[in-house]
Amino acid sequence: MGNDEDYLREAIALAHANVEKGGRPFGAVIVRNGEIVATGVNAILETGDPTSHAELNAIRLASKALGPDLGDCAVFASGHPCPMCMAAMRLAGIKAVTYAFSNEDGAPYGLSTAAIYEDLARPFPEQTMDIRHLPVRLAGMPDLYAGWRQRQG
Amino acid sequence: MGNDEDYLREAIALAHANVEKGGRPFGAVIVRNGEIVATGVNAILETGDPTSHAELNAIRLASKALGPDLGDCAVFASGHPCPMCMAAMRLAGIKAVTYAFSNEDGAPYGLSTAAIYEDLARPFPEQTMDIRHLPVRLAGMPDLYAGWRQRQG
Repeated sequence: MGNDEDYLREAIALAHANVEKGGRPFGAVIVRNGEIVATGVNAILETGDPTSHAELNAIRLASKALGPDLGDCAVFASGHPCPMCMAAMRLAGIKAVTYAFSNEDGAPYGLSTAAIYEDLARPFPEQTMDIRHLPVRLAGMPDLYAGWRQRQG
Repeated sequence: MGNDEDYLREAIALAHANVEKGGRPFGAVIVRNGEIVATGVNAILETGDPTSHAELNAIRLASKALGPDLGDCAVFASGHPCPMCMAAMRLAGIKAVTYAFSNEDGAPYGLSTAAIYEDLARPFPEQTMDIRHLPVRLAGMPDLYAGWRQRQG
């Protein structure tokens, strides 16, 4: 059982250890009832997976033990979480996240995600990705969503 | 080699098949040079992993073959991608995403992520998650980010 600064120090120590291994400088821990239930580091270089961020990996690990609802968990991340990880925490029902290194700290090293936040905050037509809605449907099939609801009983 | 409607039909067919298996109604395909290089379905119920969305799973699979830069890939998703998946595509360098079912289509079935988009678009202090910056540092350690940069050579 530690305090918030202790959990952040653990996340930063994981980030340092990841750098020692040749990885990127990000670590995260997930805490539930005062105990660390999962940790993660950025493993993009090792795995080639662009979603292999510290927070996302910690969420995946925590959910293996606790299921998809992490509502009673808090995340402590070495660095300002990117929009993907922030949204993943929100989807997992996580109610609190604390980070030590800001986007401003990361900017001189190309480690800020502020520009991605700004891009994703724009209306879809103004974002750098081409985002299109084409209301295609499969002929002869029941409605996808209504069919799903029906199966839920 | 198909056209955009064909790829969307494939994503929707995957979503239907996932519903048949008891899963949630979401599928996605990733296309590169006119070929489907990866597919994914929502596997939250099966895995307990709240990040196991169709688009994220397809990105993970594509990156296993192609590495973390999916800049020449396009995503076709049965449903409006959630903010996590949209950010993941952006991080992977994906330049185009097309979807068939809108958040409006999903809303009557609790399958819209519009509310999460709205929450995440607010300034941090106004979001439902408690987001805190505590500039903790490890005593006696070199700066995390400068140390990482130094190791890059």
